[in-house]
Amino acid sequence: MTIIERLKNKDIDPCIEKIAKQEKTTVEFIVAGLLSGEIVIAKNISRDLKSPRAFGKGLSTKINANIGTSNDHVCLEEELKKVEAAVRLGADAVMDLSTGGELAQIRKDILVNCPVPLGTVPIYQAVKETVDSGKKITDLDFELLFEVIEQQAAEGVDFMTIHFGVNRATTSVLARNKRIAGVVSRGGSFLNKWIEKNNRENPLYEEFDRLLKIAKKYDVTLSLGDGLRPGCLADASDAAQMAELAVLGELVLRSRKADVQVMVEGPGHMPLDQIQPHVIIAKRLIHNAPYYVLGPLVTDVAAGYDHITSAIGGAIAASAGADFLCYVTPAEHIRLPGIEDVKNGVVASRIAAHAADIAKKVPGAREWDDAFSRNRKALDWNKQQEMALDSEHFASERKLMKPQDEHVCTMCGKYCAMKD
Amino acid sequence: MTIIERLKNKDIDPCIEKIAKQEKTTVEFIVAGLLSGEIVIAKNISRDLKSPRAFGKGLSTKINANIGTSNDHVCLEEELKKVEAAVRLGADAVMDLSTGGELAQIRKDILVNCPVPLGTVPIYQAVKETVDSGKKITDLDFELLFEVIEQQAAEGVDFMTIHFGVNRATTSVLARNKRIAGVVSRGGSFLNKWIEKNNRENPLYEEFDRLLKIAKKYDVTLSLGDGLRPGCLADASDAAQMAELAVLGELVLRSRKADVQVMVEGPGHMPLDQIQPHVIIAKRLIHNAPYYVLGPLVTDVAAGYDHITSAIGGAIAASAGADFLCYVTPAEHIRLPGIEDVKNGVVASRIAAHAADIAKKVPGAREWDDAFSRNRKALDWNKQQEMALDSEHFASERKLMKPQDEHVCTMCGKYCAMKD
Repeated sequence: MTIIERLKNKDIDPCIEKIAKQEKTTVEFIVAGLLSGEIVIAKNISRDLKSPRAFGKGLSTKINANIGTSNDHVCLEEELKKVEAAVRLGADAVMDLSTGGELAQIRKDILVNCPVPLGTVPIYQAVKETVDSGKKITDLDFELLFEVIEQQAAEGVDFMTIHFGVNRATTSVLARNKRIAGVVSRGGSFLNKWIEKNNRENPLYEEFDRLLKIAKKYDVTLSLGDGLRPGCLADASDAAQMAELAVLGELVLRSRKADVQVMVEGPGHMPLDQIQPHVIIAKRLIHNAPYYVLGPLVTDVAAGYDHITSAIGGAIAASAGADFLCYVTPAEHIRLPGIEDVKNGVVASRIAAHAADIAKKVPGAREWDDAFSRNRKALDWNKQQEMALDSEHFASERKLMKPQDEHVCTMCGKYCAMKD
Repeated sequence: MTIIERLKNKDIDPCIEKIAKQEKTTVEFIVAGLLSGEIVIAKNISRDLKSPRAFGKGLSTKINANIGTSNDHVCLEEELKKVEAAVRLGADAVMDLSTGGELAQIRKDILVNCPVPLGTVPIYQAVKETVDSGKKITDLDFELLFEVIEQQAAEGVDFMTIHFGVNRATTSVLARNKRIAGVVSRGGSFLNKWIEKNNRENPLYEEFDRLLKIAKKYDVTLSLGDGLRPGCLADASDAAQMAELAVLGELVLRSRKADVQVMVEGPGHMPLDQIQPHVIIAKRLIHNAPYYVLGPLVTDVAAGYDHITSAIGGAIAASAGADFLCYVTPAEHIRLPGIEDVKNGVVASRIAAHAADIAKKVPGAREWDDAFSRNRKALDWNKQQEMALDSEHFASERKLMKPQDEHVCTMCGKYCAMKD
């Protein structure tokens, strides 16, 4: 039985207690959120998750690190190092977005090495198998996709991004409303092309109940993908994006009715002044399901620094109610991220999440800053290092330039204002 | 005569035309802002500024790069390289905060090599000379400070941070209201100690008219320093900070009456949810003078990454009305920044300023993003590189991993959603 079904039978999964402690809240609070659907625990029925996590209202903002091979670059060892680094630096979830190499084997190894919830986008595998067999993307057989989804669920994947909302209705809205960047979600773009080419409804949308059955069987949390998310500022909050969100809101209610845990994905690129209004409206449309945003990036022009553009947008989004931030690395828009990119992406995203948690008054968030600042005022460099968001980096930076007086730093030296 | 005096005689300085073009606005708009005091042009009467800049309402958000030696590290060549890198990457102003070595010579060389407005904090030199002569900071002779201010004004410094608002009234508010980090501004901390030790009013406050005369003589823009700014989240928006801002607001009106251009400095560290309200109240208290903020940093715990914590706060502050962002480098709180830190600080700050300009609908801001995104959609990598916020970095990142198909990148490879 799923976590939700058991809860309804008054059987509380042990991970809920662990999570309540983590979140400095009560088991009752988590249970109430799970039953209302405002909180999810992404945990496959077969996974013995070392570090379970809950996502949603009233909880600390979580962050996800995307990793995975591409057809241009395949190195399993590197991907496992990315998982290790991401989790060590504080990622609450990892998504394996591999599209190159032996996907099943890569996923299996990542699953074993990932102590936090693991997500996937199953359409990548189905499309890869289609293309590898010499067919076009638009020849994708959805029976294959359903099989892949069940295969990945059986392997233990905790949550899956599936683009149910890219359907005939929303793609026709898209077609009528001019965009600069078009469709930038890979899954969304496959489906948009498939629908157009085959002149048929998206089977994922049409057969949503079939998906719900698989999700329920393996207790997989559905992450309703925003296939029509804006890929540039000009496309943000347009008719297609809002139409898809409304469809996803309907599917949230159907998932909850089926006792399937569900969250919803959001943008993308968005002007800073739209982010707070967007999150408020989105949370309304999706009936307060956990909202999982990618960025948002507050400018299009800073490729090479999109961990920063998305930290700005992510902090604002999370403080307005987004629950889960997908990191963006400095490599975004340029190349597949390496390990250093993953580290920089995780840190930037954690900064955004923590800044938002302070604003949202999440229990325990501000205490960290106050304790840290007491140590800064006391010029206690060891304790500062210990408590720093990235302790290792703090230490190596401090070593780069030694002050004459070890109590201060080389910025102000003997004129340090903190010194009495 | 100063720019303002001449304007009142209908004599428009040629730099105003240059600035109006830069800002995609009219000469009339700039002139009106200068006369109301909502806009300043920081330009010393003797400086032939290659790249003049205006700061204030309705204009693009400007950014400042702090450079300078410390008593722990003195290298003029390095400082000149910092100036060059900062300006090349888009700094609109530079502040020389040197406190180590031959300050006058360093400043002279920086002035010659700095095409944008140059600012200083004269009390650093006066304190250094005091300490170098074997005296204590609290023995500072204010006649020396007045001399230093006039000396630097005569040399051509365009704007000066002076902490007029750290006076008996505001330091007594400070004493009554407990803080974690106390006073973290170096100038503020010198003055706070001096007032306490000597049991006298701050001569800068007492003899403000004397300062106005010097500022007017050399057309130096006053930057009213926030000596009591918060140095951690817990101290933000407290009684002392707000009391000082109110005092600075009074001095804004006195400066305007004397035809002296004036701006006001702001925090510091501040929880994300306080930033917008803070900027709105601050701009009211300072009668819409240009507001020049340092950060704000939205968390205290991320030392080593404070270019990111301050980019988040700076973007929100500027979108709420702050006009001028002082960058923060990744080295902040740890050591004197090197050249790479300066570059990272400038880029992060530019991202924040540009994101805010999009939100503020500054003329021309969004056009950059839209044009960039059209090139991204067209997979035109050369034009993307050309237009990127940091073109050199974009190019070097792109070279790190070559895709099989040069039209795409190694992230999605042949599955690129942008590809038709």
